[in-house]
This record gives sequence, C-alpha cells and structure tokens, in this order.
Amino acid sequence: MNEESLLKRIASLMSTRDETFVKVGPGDDCAVFDWPAGAKLLATVDHLVEGRHFEGPIISLTSLPPLSALGTTTSAIARKAIARSVSDIAAMAGTPVACLATAAFPAAFPQALAEELVDQFQIWGRHFNCPTVGGDLTSLAAGSACVFTVTALGIAHPSRGPVLRSGARRGDLVVVTGQVGGSLNSGRHLTFEPRIREGSLLAESLGSALHAMMDISDGLGLDAARLARASNLAIEIDSSAIPLHADIADPVQACRDGEDYELLFTIDRHASLDQARELFAAASISTPLTIIGRVIGATSETPHCALNHAGNRLDISNLGWQHT
Amino acid sequence: MNEESLLKRIASLMSTRDETFVKVGPGDDCAVFDWPAGAKLLATVDHLVEGRHFEGPIISLTSLPPLSALGTTTSAIARKAIARSVSDIAAMAGTPVACLATAAFPAAFPQALAEELVDQFQIWGRHFNCPTVGGDLTSLAAGSACVFTVTALGIAHPSRGPVLRSGARRGDLVVVTGQVGGSLNSGRHLTFEPRIREGSLLAESLGSALHAMMDISDGLGLDAARLARASNLAIEIDSSAIPLHADIADPVQACRDGEDYELLFTIDRHASLDQARELFAAASISTPLTIIGRVIGATSETPHCALNHAGNRLDISNLGWQHT
Repeated sequence: MNEESLLKRIASLMSTRDETFVKVGPGDDCAVFDWPAGAKLLATVDHLVEGRHFEGPIISLTSLPPLSALGTTTSAIARKAIARSVSDIAAMAGTPVACLATAAFPAAFPQALAEELVDQFQIWGRHFNCPTVGGDLTSLAAGSACVFTVTALGIAHPSRGPVLRSGARRGDLVVVTGQVGGSLNSGRHLTFEPRIREGSLLAESLGSALHAMMDISDGLGLDAARLARASNLAIEIDSSAIPLHADIADPVQACRDGEDYELLFTIDRHASLDQARELFAAASISTPLTIIGRVIGATSETPHCALNHAGNRLDISNLGWQHT
Repeated sequence: MNEESLLKRIASLMSTRDETFVKVGPGDDCAVFDWPAGAKLLATVDHLVEGRHFEGPIISLTSLPPLSALGTTTSAIARKAIARSVSDIAAMAGTPVACLATAAFPAAFPQALAEELVDQFQIWGRHFNCPTVGGDLTSLAAGSACVFTVTALGIAHPSRGPVLRSGARRGDLVVVTGQVGGSLNSGRHLTFEPRIREGSLLAESLGSALHAMMDISDGLGLDAARLARASNLAIEIDSSAIPLHADIADPVQACRDGEDYELLFTIDRHASLDQARELFAAASISTPLTIIGRVIGATSETPHCALNHAGNRLDISNLGWQHT
C-alpha cells in the first residue's frame, strides 16, 4: 500500500463542486463546510473491524465467484462502514452531510485492493448522501486486521431538532421500523438501509410527540434498555408484537441478535402513526411501523427492558451484543 | 476491557454544561452542536497507532519510573492523539471546538489502562479546548497494536476564513513557526504544542496577506512540496535560514525528520510580520517566526521544493516521512 498515491487518488476522486455544504474536500489539512445558520450539527463515529464487523479476508469485486465463501467484498465493507455511522444520524432524525473515513491496513496490503476500497468509500458515501470528504490512512504490522472508522456529520431536523434517547415519557408507545432478528446469519448486516428518510418523516409528522429515538445496533433488548435508562424509565415489550424477519421464528433470539439498524422510538400515547404512514406512502417508502410495547415507570427493582413472552416476564436488558 | 463500563465512564466524565457549542455529549447516538451562524466548520481526522506513532507498550501513569524506558504513558498517547488533529485545525488558522475519539484495543487489554486512557482523552481534550464529546470503542485480536483516531471539529477564523494550502502566490515569502528537526529522537513528537493561537493571530494580523498555510507533520521538504503543488507553484528554501532545535545540526536532516507540527505558511512579499510579532508578544507567545524561503514559479522541471544548501540546490520534495 502506497499512502501518497492513495491520497492523490482520494483527492482526485472527490469533486466538491456539487456539494451544497462542502467547500473543501480531501487534500488539505481539514475539510471545510459552510454550515447553514441555525442548523444543529450532529457528529458520530463508528468502527468497522475485520473479523469483528465483517468476515475477512477483504476480497476484490473483480475476484471470481463464489465471493460469499471467501470473505467480504470491498463494496460491502465500504457500504457497511458508512451505513453504520449514517444510521446514527438517522437515529436522531437527522440528515447526513458528509463523512471522514480512516483505514489502517496491514503491511503489504495489496495496493489494488486499497484503491478499490477508496473508490467504494466514495461510491457508497454518495449513495447515502454522505460523501467522503476527508480521512486518514496508516499501516499496521503484517497480519493485523484492517481497522476502519467513519465519522459522519449531519444536520438535525430543522423543526423537531435532534431526537435524543433521553426524551421518553411514562405511557409512551414503543415503536420499531422494519423487521428485526437474524441480521448476521442472513447477511443483512451488510446490506441494511439506514432509516434516514424514515427518521426524518417521523420527525416531520410527529413533531414534539416523537419523544425519544435510537437505532438498534447491539440488540433490541440491550438497546431498548439503554433508551429507557437514558430516560430514567423502563420499557415493556410484547414478544408477539415484534416484527420478525421471515427467516427468524424466535422473538427472544431476535432481541439478542443486534445489527438490525432499525429505528426504535417512543411516541406520546395519544399520538397516531397514521400521518407518518401517509408520508411514507407518498414517498414510496414501504418500511412498516409496529408498536411493540410501552414505556413504564422504573423502580430500582424494575428491569430497564422486560419482555412479555409466553406468559413469562423476562428481563432482556442485557440481551444483545455483549461488549466485553 | 469491558466496553459497556468504559462507555458509562465516558458519559459520566463528560459534562456538556460548560461547553459553548456542545449540546449533547457522549451517551447518545450522536454528539449535538449548536453551530454559530456564518462560522465555517473544519473537520479532520488522524490516526495514532502503537508502534508507528508512539512506542509500545502503553504504560500507566501509576507505573514505577523510569517510564521512558518502558513505552509510552496513557497521558502522552492521549495528548499526542488529540494534538495531531488539533494541529490540523491550527493549520487552517481555525479554533478547535470538540473531538470524537476511537480506540481499538487488543483482547485482554487491561481495564484499568483503558479507563486511564479514557480519562486522559478527557483531560487533554479540555487542555486543548477540544473536549472529547463522543467516540467508539472496539476489540482487536490478542497481540494487535492499539489503534486510535481523533476527529477534530473546529471553526475557521471569522474574518480571514480557512487558510488553504492552495493559496500561495509567486513571490510570497515562506515562513515557519518555532524550530524544526529531531522531533522523534528528542521526544518532542509527544509534547509539541499545536499552534492554535499562533495560527489565529497570524490570520488576525495578516488577513488576506496570509496566502497559504499547513502544519509540518511529515517533514519540511515533503510538506512544503505539497503546499507548492496545491498552489501550482514551487518553493525554494535557504538551508541557513531554517530555525533548528538546539539538538539538531544538519538542516537537511531537519527537513526529513517530520512530526514538527509547526506552521508553514506563505505571505505576500510586501507584507510584514511585525504586527503578528506584536500580537504574539501581547499574548505572551514566544514562538518565533522565521522567513526561510520564497515561492517561485513552477515548470515541469522545477522541483516542488528545492533547498539551497552549501552551494548546491537539492530537490527535497520527497524528504520526509515516506508513506509506503
């Protein structure tokens, strides 16, 4: 891998002229933005690590099939790296603006593969309306896993503002977009669509009745508990209400799987999802919205997230990707 | 390393109440900023990798001396990681606002050391007026090098705007702050002061006569050539004019060393540095400003950076940290 040559490639690929906010892209010390007056800035960063967030080795799009048995393509890697951070922008009902990407490659990483990754970061950044406008490259010891990060910048919804995790209120309905479960086994963790438009239309239609929101990255149980904890409340979920992907039968397992990147949000109990669904339909968005539970008061004995399942009440507050 | 416990520690350490722009810090999906109207946003990201940007192993501040023989302290690592990105903000004459930090630790990385790093990222972020308001943690295979990144956000100078590399003009004087050379051997690469105040006062005093600027990270030769190339011009440096650190005798070597994190800038040939020096003195800044060369026209045969040294004219365009 020759960094200087990659850096030149990055600078040449990125034209800033068609970007609304981006005044200077790669090639200088910083990217420069004209930030619109009054627009709240959102910033988030996530890792994508070989062997943890995708299966190695990294393979070229020009490799012979079957690709799936060999590892993960440059395209899938760039897509997921950017989509994970874009999903965090969606989780606040924001709109992505641009991203900065970093890549740490092991020594002797093939130059052609590094170039392909650079190209794919550009392609997927544009796909998600979150162009790659800067970054950094470095080398690791031979045999190291590749480590990527993507920092995404976004703009909060102009009227609703950023939708935090901490805004849930007692009695709120708990809603989820799309379906959950089986993301890793099915490969959906590489192909999910960050719910940018959905988040924005929810903020548009519900306004201040959209109380709290986040995306499900580590697991419905663990993440719902985080939202509840941030709001000093608890969440109760009805297992039969959870919208499962067709390849998943067990809702308890679905709460544990994680990497769904669906939006989990709470709305005022008197609010309706009808207008949101109308806006979705008008925008040709088929993502379902499903009420799966409610927000209840928390005492020191209450689990932050409980699942009513087959007549039992399970504490699923720690059900998800265990970060240890 | 227990990520969940580290994330809670990060959220508890970070109080957003005393931050001007930061509305939401760690613990939600994104950090949220109230961006001031009309203020251009700067964004940059840099790696800090064990074994490449600092010597491993990472050692605790509570270890017994002598520390220097053992590796690099958590404090020195956090300091350098943040200072590198802050220096990129300085390189545009901007002011840092906040940063997002990532850390990828090998399996079984000691929890106490990870906590100390988290604390040090908070401490040094505040020290550089660039508080850590978000980030991400992940695990690598046992034996991997630690990989850190810091994304810094900053505000461009309100009247001068961002000072790009591409603004140099033929006939400009080439100036450098401080002294260069010997950064790695002396340990200064861990203790440098990003030239935030200097950059800002240069923009203040020189205004539009401050044509182009960058920081010297990879080496005076390589970096001056980058500035020249970005401006479609060439730079000629007089070796006897280069301000060297006391422990460095050879100016050619000093052009190669890199990691100086001094500002390299060009000003209109009729401009004076007197007002800048007065502002420095008034602010008790003792950083010297030294004219080391000039900007000349480039032809296809001209080196982007030439050094006049001992009667010879050396092409030093590639003299610096070689990114291969």
